[in-house]
Amino acid sequence: MADLYDIGVSAIINLLSALAFLIAFAILRLQPVNDRVYFPKWYLKGLRASPIRPKGSLTKFVNLDFRTYLRFLNWMPEALKMPEPELIEHAGVDSVVYIRIYLLGLKIFIPIMALAFAVLVPVNWTGKMLDNAQYVSFNSIDKLSISNIPQGSNRFWAHIFVAYASTLWTCYMLYKEYEIVTAMRLEFIAVADRRPDQFSVLVRNVPPDPDESVNGHVEHFFRVNHPDHYLLHQVVYNANKLADLVEKKKSMKNWLIYYQNMYERRPLRKPTIKAGFWGLWGARVDAIDYYTKEIEKLTEQEAAEREKVISDPEAILPAAFVSFRSRWGAAVCAQTQQTSNPTLWLTEWAPEPSDVYWNNLAIPYVEHNIRKLFMSVALFFLIFFFMVPITFVQSIANIDGLEKAFPFMKNLIEQGPVRSFVKGYLPGIILKIFLLCIPMVVMLMSKIEGFTSFSYLERRSAAKYYLFILVNVFLGNIIAGTAFQQLSHFLHKSATDIPRIIGESIPMKATFFITYIMIDGWAGVAAEVLRIVPLLLFHIKNAVLVKTEQDREEAMDPGFLDFAAYEPRIQLYFLLGLVYCVVTPILLPFIIVFFAFAYLVFRHQIINVYDRKYESGAAFWPDVHRRILVALVISHFSLLGLLSAKLSIKSIKATIPLLLALPILTIWFHTICKGRFESAFKKFPLQDAMMKDTLERATDPTLDLRSYLRDAYLHPIFKGGEVYAPPPSDEEEGFPLVATKRSQRSSRVTSLAGSDVGVQLV
Amino acid sequence: MADLYDIGVSAIINLLSALAFLIAFAILRLQPVNDRVYFPKWYLKGLRASPIRPKGSLTKFVNLDFRTYLRFLNWMPEALKMPEPELIEHAGVDSVVYIRIYLLGLKIFIPIMALAFAVLVPVNWTGKMLDNAQYVSFNSIDKLSISNIPQGSNRFWAHIFVAYASTLWTCYMLYKEYEIVTAMRLEFIAVADRRPDQFSVLVRNVPPDPDESVNGHVEHFFRVNHPDHYLLHQVVYNANKLADLVEKKKSMKNWLIYYQNMYERRPLRKPTIKAGFWGLWGARVDAIDYYTKEIEKLTEQEAAEREKVISDPEAILPAAFVSFRSRWGAAVCAQTQQTSNPTLWLTEWAPEPSDVYWNNLAIPYVEHNIRKLFMSVALFFLIFFFMVPITFVQSIANIDGLEKAFPFMKNLIEQGPVRSFVKGYLPGIILKIFLLCIPMVVMLMSKIEGFTSFSYLERRSAAKYYLFILVNVFLGNIIAGTAFQQLSHFLHKSATDIPRIIGESIPMKATFFITYIMIDGWAGVAAEVLRIVPLLLFHIKNAVLVKTEQDREEAMDPGFLDFAAYEPRIQLYFLLGLVYCVVTPILLPFIIVFFAFAYLVFRHQIINVYDRKYESGAAFWPDVHRRILVALVISHFSLLGLLSAKLSIKSIKATIPLLLALPILTIWFHTICKGRFESAFKKFPLQDAMMKDTLERATDPTLDLRSYLRDAYLHPIFKGGEVYAPPPSDEEEGFPLVATKRSQRSSRVTSLAGSDVGVQLV
Repeated sequence: MADLYDIGVSAIINLLSALAFLIAFAILRLQPVNDRVYFPKWYLKGLRASPIRPKGSLTKFVNLDFRTYLRFLNWMPEALKMPEPELIEHAGVDSVVYIRIYLLGLKIFIPIMALAFAVLVPVNWTGKMLDNAQYVSFNSIDKLSISNIPQGSNRFWAHIFVAYASTLWTCYMLYKEYEIVTAMRLEFIAVADRRPDQFSVLVRNVPPDPDESVNGHVEHFFRVNHPDHYLLHQVVYNANKLADLVEKKKSMKNWLIYYQNMYERRPLRKPTIKAGFWGLWGARVDAIDYYTKEIEKLTEQEAAEREKVISDPEAILPAAFVSFRSRWGAAVCAQTQQTSNPTLWLTEWAPEPSDVYWNNLAIPYVEHNIRKLFMSVALFFLIFFFMVPITFVQSIANIDGLEKAFPFMKNLIEQGPVRSFVKGYLPGIILKIFLLCIPMVVMLMSKIEGFTSFSYLERRSAAKYYLFILVNVFLGNIIAGTAFQQLSHFLHKSATDIPRIIGESIPMKATFFITYIMIDGWAGVAAEVLRIVPLLLFHIKNAVLVKTEQDREEAMDPGFLDFAAYEPRIQLYFLLGLVYCVVTPILLPFIIVFFAFAYLVFRHQIINVYDRKYESGAAFWPDVHRRILVALVISHFSLLGLLSAKLSIKSIKATIPLLLALPILTIWFHTICKGRFESAFKKFPLQDAMMKDTLERATDPTLDLRSYLRDAYLHPIFKGGEVYAPPPSDEEEGFPLVATKRSQRSSRVTSLAGSDVGVQLV
Repeated sequence: MADLYDIGVSAIINLLSALAFLIAFAILRLQPVNDRVYFPKWYLKGLRASPIRPKGSLTKFVNLDFRTYLRFLNWMPEALKMPEPELIEHAGVDSVVYIRIYLLGLKIFIPIMALAFAVLVPVNWTGKMLDNAQYVSFNSIDKLSISNIPQGSNRFWAHIFVAYASTLWTCYMLYKEYEIVTAMRLEFIAVADRRPDQFSVLVRNVPPDPDESVNGHVEHFFRVNHPDHYLLHQVVYNANKLADLVEKKKSMKNWLIYYQNMYERRPLRKPTIKAGFWGLWGARVDAIDYYTKEIEKLTEQEAAEREKVISDPEAILPAAFVSFRSRWGAAVCAQTQQTSNPTLWLTEWAPEPSDVYWNNLAIPYVEHNIRKLFMSVALFFLIFFFMVPITFVQSIANIDGLEKAFPFMKNLIEQGPVRSFVKGYLPGIILKIFLLCIPMVVMLMSKIEGFTSFSYLERRSAAKYYLFILVNVFLGNIIAGTAFQQLSHFLHKSATDIPRIIGESIPMKATFFITYIMIDGWAGVAAEVLRIVPLLLFHIKNAVLVKTEQDREEAMDPGFLDFAAYEPRIQLYFLLGLVYCVVTPILLPFIIVFFAFAYLVFRHQIINVYDRKYESGAAFWPDVHRRILVALVISHFSLLGLLSAKLSIKSIKATIPLLLALPILTIWFHTICKGRFESAFKKFPLQDAMMKDTLERATDPTLDLRSYLRDAYLHPIFKGGEVYAPPPSDEEEGFPLVATKRSQRSSRVTSLAGSDVGVQLV
């Protein structure tokens, strides 16, 4: 175990590396040539153009104004300046609420730290348990922790007091925060600017009808069942193949530009490629000719496919976006059940148009459930057998394995530095690569599950990733062995033993987690601000693809706030803070530094860098809130386990009810918060909708909602120039009598089961 | 352990006692004097009047037609005759669905029994484990059970096969049944006759408004937010005190009649009572005078209180029943959220008027949650410390204790028969009395929790009682010791040990549960049909209170289907059947006899006896369904535990995944069913509402909905003759501009926070 001194050294190393990142960032960001890497958001907003500097060619790429370097940290106060309403305007509710998570961490942990340092550090320090005992391994950290209190001491009451105080404070802050975020969300949904999703509802699982097309069926259904509110609808086309073609064409175009650029620079050598599979074999042909022809071919295919999608009724999926005359009408339709079979005509709030994940709109109800079942089994295996493939790859990727697989590289591998790299770093790097893939794997799993909006996919992925981190990072480091070994270990332990085992090993792991926080937290966040990968990619693209200003625009990769990958990691810090605040309070300052630093960096990033992929109105907050409460409950049980091993039999009887009350009250607090706030994230109050509708009618009486909404939910593939005619929709206002094919069949008029009986009776 | 012979004897005894009950019933029900006890439902329906027989005074009381006695079991086919639609008409959806639970038991267990007898009985019987071993206690039952299979045998595959087959069959039947019940409910809600609750919504937690009364506030809020649909509303008065007065007056009247009757029969002795506390002390006064005066006093008080309730704005609770112009409007309002604060203006389907539990309508949101928290803690103590008060009472109620408490009874107690009664039966009777109180206690707890309809109170009570039975009857008989001892026992066992412990003791308890089924099931149901307590009460009332035909009407106590007390007990039989169908299939016939007999008896009772207290449209079905699935999962884990102790190490590895898949698939099946059907019990499809609305407009265009709904949700205390003027409601149709006090205050007109901003802007 590391001593305070070791921790100090580690802290200095990590601080220095973080500082190095920051200095590198400070220098790089001032270079005009990197401007599009570090300030892409402003370019996207059209508020910044490629820098125009005095003619000198060097200053176009390098910043020679040395005074600016002196103020290399001035981005920090800059990042804090923008007030929140403006930030919402600039970066969206999602991003603003996301950085509030870091702020919440500060709000929770600074007072807790103050209390823990005032109460627990003196109590622990003077505990004298470790002074007297003949313990082999103890260190100054342990002297500040609960380990320094002797068995059965009365001092544990101080810890119970701090546990209560910190739980109460955390719940109070969570409540306040939930209140604020809910208000922001309601403001966003109803009172903010007019957006198509305020008026629209996504309808899925439209039942097949032998007499009608999906188009007609949807229209008739909503005209009958929402007669005063239905305005228009947009069917969903199965354009996945078309999207693939467009994607392929875009990549071909990139290659064409690349070879054209090459040819321009070296006009003597005409570039050629092999025409076969992946350019690896086949006849050698002229590259520019080849790609020009391929693009022509694809353009034709694309046109044919486009034609087919629009004209073929088979290409229409049993889903639609239905828009209403008022927010009230949409709110009603989204919150109610439409038919007696709740697996048909499923209505939900339409996601923002850019938030729609088009590929999943047509999955039937039962298939969706089967997919969910399979993915939860897969998640179980991912979490508990995560180490199996890694161990397998590691066993191959050793010296002998590599030599066997690549005999021709034997000499290279046998060389000293390569050998020691393979031996020393390769297993770690393989682990890291697998770990980096987890967010992508869980995102893929969520996509397979079949959810219909990017925001929801991200939330589902975050939930999976959180479980993964909880088991593999938190528990995996507290208890030795792989996750599956832990699981079978715990299955054979009693319900009272499990918290005791975890609780007892928690103080011993404090130094490990402090180091973890510094490496993953401090240095990781500093690396985030530097954006090494986008920086390199931008310059490579700039070198080979960019000719015009528009190309440069496209080469720019602002990235986005990857909620699914970042949020579960923040949750780990909440968990560590809450678990250790009573046990080893010395860990708290490290967490607070992380939260403060990350808050700064991400505030800077959302102002200057990240693009907004979609806007969900902070729909993720209930998840964040719930996970912090889960962390709180875990901290209670670990404290219970720790104290049950440390207290005398008599005090245990007195404290167990006290300690058991904590998780019960926390879970109760969760139900209160759920009842009080969660519906704001699921439903949409009619009062707000009505208010906004009324206001809008008063301020903008001539608004043509129909033309505003007509193309809002068109598949993005149909947007951007190509003419597309939406299916003719009945323009008649009021409640027209819609002639259905079915109503012409007199034999079925009397059937009550049909969806349009209302029409026939009117 | 009992042998087959013992079981046979016990079966004969219980069959005989059941037969005795049935014969007693057959004789008693034919006596005209008991007609109102055994056929009260027909009296309530007005289809039967007091029997008019030939003048002879004896035949008025006793049936002398001996031919009718010969057909003493003919009520059984009679009970099966009424077809289901007519039965729904006659007894309501709740009752019909309730008896379908018994039918479901038959549908599930008859095929399972056939399979288990065909497969498992031969496999077990030839297992020969118990023939060879030197077991001290084994019997023929055990030879038919899984205990007869030797350790590590391959025959266990047969049991796994039956477990799969029975799980699949149970799930299939549950799915079919859920489908049928859902259809019945939807039919009831939308398509059935017009009822006030189809148009009405219960609004709770109306926020206080400094400028307006609750009455005005509700009207304005709904006029603004449901402008096209709001029709009228009915505020809720705090009439609890008034109801108490009315109740007290009724009881006084009963006493008055009693003494008047006494006086008529024995005119020589004027009846007197003591005027003090409970008639135990005080001056002796003339009883008739006393009660006449008391009644006069109460009548005055009642009138004053009634006046006060109607005129005092403080007596209006922050809750209201809001009625809409159409079912569609009510369906929308019930399913949507009204304001941004989801703890205010809570809307839900109005219960049927007779289903409303008026006392709980005004509990604020947070208080409701605190009550729920306290009641769940109380439930925990009720379940796990249930034995503590019983043991205490039993310790007092022994010979010595009684002699100490009642020294003057010493001689009596010391007598032989009394002594042996106190020693032998008193502890058992005390336990039984406490057990009989449990349904009342959990109902009281549910009432304290603060739910607003009788049907929901019953469902909550049933859930509590189910937990109680599960822990104290099922687990309590499998594992020795009190519930709390079991709990602490299990807390110290590992997750793999708990199913093993339960699984291993399950086969040993088969004979106990067979006896339990015969006593509690067979004899208990037979006692139900006899209605001993109502029979006695009716004749006592008849003797002392009844003078007129109307008094006789009131003395009749038809009782009602006590869902909260009966359903959890049925669930115990499902649990036993599912757990034992693989382990000891010989138990199944006993359960099937129970289900068949109970089906017959309760079908007879709902046709002839029980009154309908309310009608919830089978809202309890999701609970029934879920509990059967819980039983299924328990059966899987007990089988897993049993087999893990019985299988060889090698086969365990092969079977554990197979056995673990069973509960996982069952839980998945639960989520499927929940998604597919449950919303029919929570929401109300708009299509059905619209269809019925349209039909009604077409068939009954002149319907005056306003007068139909005006008094539907009046507190029952205001009904029945006393003139009551509902608060004047704006009769203007359309969307009137409602003048609120607030709109006269110019300073607040611009505020967006108010509920009636819509009005001001229109």
